[in-house]
Amino acid sequence: MAKITSRAEDYSKWYNELVVQADLAENSGVRGCMVIKPYGYAIWEKMRDELDKKFKETGHQNAYFPLFIPKSYFEAEEQNAEGFAKECAVVTHYRLKTDPNNPKKLIVDPEAKLEEELIVRPTSEAIIWNTYKKWIQSYRDLPILINQWANVVRWEMRTRFFLRTAEFLWQEGHTAHATKEEAIEETEKMIHVYSDFVENFMGIPVIRGIKTASERFAGADETYCIEALMQDGKALQAGTSHFLGQNFGKAFDVKFTNKEGKIEHAWGTSWGTSTRLIGGLIMTHSDDLGLVLPPSLAPIQVVIVPIFKGEEQLNQINEVAFEIQDKLKAKGIAVKYDNRTENKPGWKFAEYELKGVPIRIAMGARDLENQTVEIARRDNLTKEVQPLENIEVYIEELLKTIQKDIYAKALNYRDSHITPVNSYDEFKKVLEEKGGFISAHWDGTAEVEEQIKNETKATIRCIPLNNELEDGISLITGKPSKQRVIFAKSY
Amino acid sequence: MAKITSRAEDYSKWYNELVVQADLAENSGVRGCMVIKPYGYAIWEKMRDELDKKFKETGHQNAYFPLFIPKSYFEAEEQNAEGFAKECAVVTHYRLKTDPNNPKKLIVDPEAKLEEELIVRPTSEAIIWNTYKKWIQSYRDLPILINQWANVVRWEMRTRFFLRTAEFLWQEGHTAHATKEEAIEETEKMIHVYSDFVENFMGIPVIRGIKTASERFAGADETYCIEALMQDGKALQAGTSHFLGQNFGKAFDVKFTNKEGKIEHAWGTSWGTSTRLIGGLIMTHSDDLGLVLPPSLAPIQVVIVPIFKGEEQLNQINEVAFEIQDKLKAKGIAVKYDNRTENKPGWKFAEYELKGVPIRIAMGARDLENQTVEIARRDNLTKEVQPLENIEVYIEELLKTIQKDIYAKALNYRDSHITPVNSYDEFKKVLEEKGGFISAHWDGTAEVEEQIKNETKATIRCIPLNNELEDGISLITGKPSKQRVIFAKSY
Repeated sequence: MAKITSRAEDYSKWYNELVVQADLAENSGVRGCMVIKPYGYAIWEKMRDELDKKFKETGHQNAYFPLFIPKSYFEAEEQNAEGFAKECAVVTHYRLKTDPNNPKKLIVDPEAKLEEELIVRPTSEAIIWNTYKKWIQSYRDLPILINQWANVVRWEMRTRFFLRTAEFLWQEGHTAHATKEEAIEETEKMIHVYSDFVENFMGIPVIRGIKTASERFAGADETYCIEALMQDGKALQAGTSHFLGQNFGKAFDVKFTNKEGKIEHAWGTSWGTSTRLIGGLIMTHSDDLGLVLPPSLAPIQVVIVPIFKGEEQLNQINEVAFEIQDKLKAKGIAVKYDNRTENKPGWKFAEYELKGVPIRIAMGARDLENQTVEIARRDNLTKEVQPLENIEVYIEELLKTIQKDIYAKALNYRDSHITPVNSYDEFKKVLEEKGGFISAHWDGTAEVEEQIKNETKATIRCIPLNNELEDGISLITGKPSKQRVIFAKSY
Repeated sequence: MAKITSRAEDYSKWYNELVVQADLAENSGVRGCMVIKPYGYAIWEKMRDELDKKFKETGHQNAYFPLFIPKSYFEAEEQNAEGFAKECAVVTHYRLKTDPNNPKKLIVDPEAKLEEELIVRPTSEAIIWNTYKKWIQSYRDLPILINQWANVVRWEMRTRFFLRTAEFLWQEGHTAHATKEEAIEETEKMIHVYSDFVENFMGIPVIRGIKTASERFAGADETYCIEALMQDGKALQAGTSHFLGQNFGKAFDVKFTNKEGKIEHAWGTSWGTSTRLIGGLIMTHSDDLGLVLPPSLAPIQVVIVPIFKGEEQLNQINEVAFEIQDKLKAKGIAVKYDNRTENKPGWKFAEYELKGVPIRIAMGARDLENQTVEIARRDNLTKEVQPLENIEVYIEELLKTIQKDIYAKALNYRDSHITPVNSYDEFKKVLEEKGGFISAHWDGTAEVEEQIKNETKATIRCIPLNNELEDGISLITGKPSKQRVIFAKSY
């Protein structure tokens, strides 16, 4: 097992090495596309199942729409098309044929050219609103509350594991409503579903807010977001929920008769989270030894490692360890007993630390004698000896404690990295020396936003929801401002 | 609610209308691609969850590989490439730009041409074996037991809902092994996992067998299959499991050091089932009134419909119905109480018949008085009156009975449609007049198989596993044959 680069030495290298060493993902032979390995996919499955449950609890149903979007649909909503046209994969042909010059090679068959090019979905508003047109005639057909789990493709030039890949997995909710108010309510509801999930299930604290016009989703009237803070002081957008107004309703001519008998265009929302969140998970909690996973997401929550000399001792430990394993399993805890003889305990300790297993139980000859076990927490690296009796109750509680502690630690880091500043000089100094979220007054113009971005690479991450009003003066222009907004460099 | 065409009138029309009317799926604006609507997708989710459980129980893990396959990988296994080259979607460009002649239109940007074309996966052996190459060095790295849930694209010219669509959802298992024996064992294990699932969960009886060389998966040494029989006497391939030999191991140069220290190519298998099974589900059980769903797959297992005059009566029924609903829910039964007032009971009856809800509970004034309910079974259309007391226990048992009865009915149909014939004339007569599976002697040559296919459209569906040996003479040639094989027209 190779040691990984430390965060202090090179955060970016640490991240890439950790993803590969912990068996989460690896690069594929396809530019910008990764292979999500079983250990990484198991984390995604847990995220997906929990989110899916929350979507269903809030009245949504899953469906599935085509991967391909005909170019003419793609063009229909202009802003959306403009936003995604620069980075989309285009299918132009539907057949290969044998290369006449080399029977072992295939070439695109020029006779199999599509009449209309197909875009591999970068997001599905276009194909879905084209479908909704058929489903919506009356206010009685509304709301439509649909979610889709799917792969999407955005031809990013610079890619990074999970954070930015040409293909990624995500869910995209697409809803249609009879009134503006209801659509806004849905948009807000979903950003809260996301923040609840990301904070309580993934242990990642977030700021809920809305995007400025320049950071909005292409085709939206308003974009709500949750913003997390990574350990290197950079922000990560962890989920977005868009109020689409009637933009797609109009672009795809989705009309309905309202309660008053008048014809109106439908109101829309869309909202999404993706495998990108796994990147956020890694960069929020993990350390120089490897992954730190909250128990809710750990494919293995508890590992038991025997410490023994000779077969007889192993047999004695086996007996007790299998019993512990059974008791933990009965409580629904994902436990693994690793009594392989080819690896030394020290090797196993390092391996499960790398993989982020929340609790390690070690058991040796003295433990057998004393009827105890040694319990090591991955999150804070503490160890303690506990009696064997009722160990399953202790572990069950400890998992809950770890889940809370991991969040509290991340929250503490995040809160100590929100810095209010009152001048552009101070802004640049904090950004340079400390990073993190910077809370500052902004005059509301795209010009100031743009200038700050060009000069510092920091962007407005969001205008926090329920923001406190406060009289102040804007960065750069010194114009009056009513509230602070959150700036940061970001992934 | 429009009435659907009867099966006797036009089976194919019945099928298409049923899919649309029952809200399972609809055509999209993309050629050959359908939209899977929430009701259809809910059935797929149940299938997926059950299969996924079975895969995990047999030691498999999920992972995710890229959607795109570079052309050079695609070419590597020649048979496989040849098999899929004629019907694949090809990505050639990665950007659109504004049409210089029309600012509202987009065109493919000729400057954004890919150096190497990407094939949208029709199946993932090529990309996966290219990855396995990196994972496999020693026999200790084997077996690799991986499954992927994904969308795939095959550019079919004639498409039909679920049965044949340009894009479809499926799972594809891809395993690598150190020995031929182990790979064959895996191939066989998975065809039994499939048949167990299709028979016991979906209620569809199947024949397990192997394909003839001409019907084999492109790139396989042996293809195992399960074959179901639809109500129109046509067969449907319901799942396949392929023994790939060392074909992909060699094509992608996947080598390992075996226990004896010698270098060998890895042995492979792949196996898949898809949304096509939903087509099989519909065509096996449903009738002229609509869907018939086995309880295991029904998104709604029980519907309660009140029969009332006036609000007071409805209130009285509500009280009891909500109680029944709670009791059924407590037993984990998916129950819906439909007390909407805008639709009449007769309309609701027809609606839930169309949707295939296994049990309908009706409750009127007399039932209230007598403390009874009327129970109607969707599968055999029988009705009975049952006491209210312990109704949840009765319903729970009845759901199990229905699950068994649906299978038994299909099995009875299937078994009465396996016809042994001893001459080609008899073969043609049975195929024409009765359809179904025809059991006949075959001399093992591709020529006879081909001639029969050309003349009758029937193909050899499979050589059954554990086939009884029997001396006979082949169709057409009259050559000696040792066993019968199963012929049918198929989807």
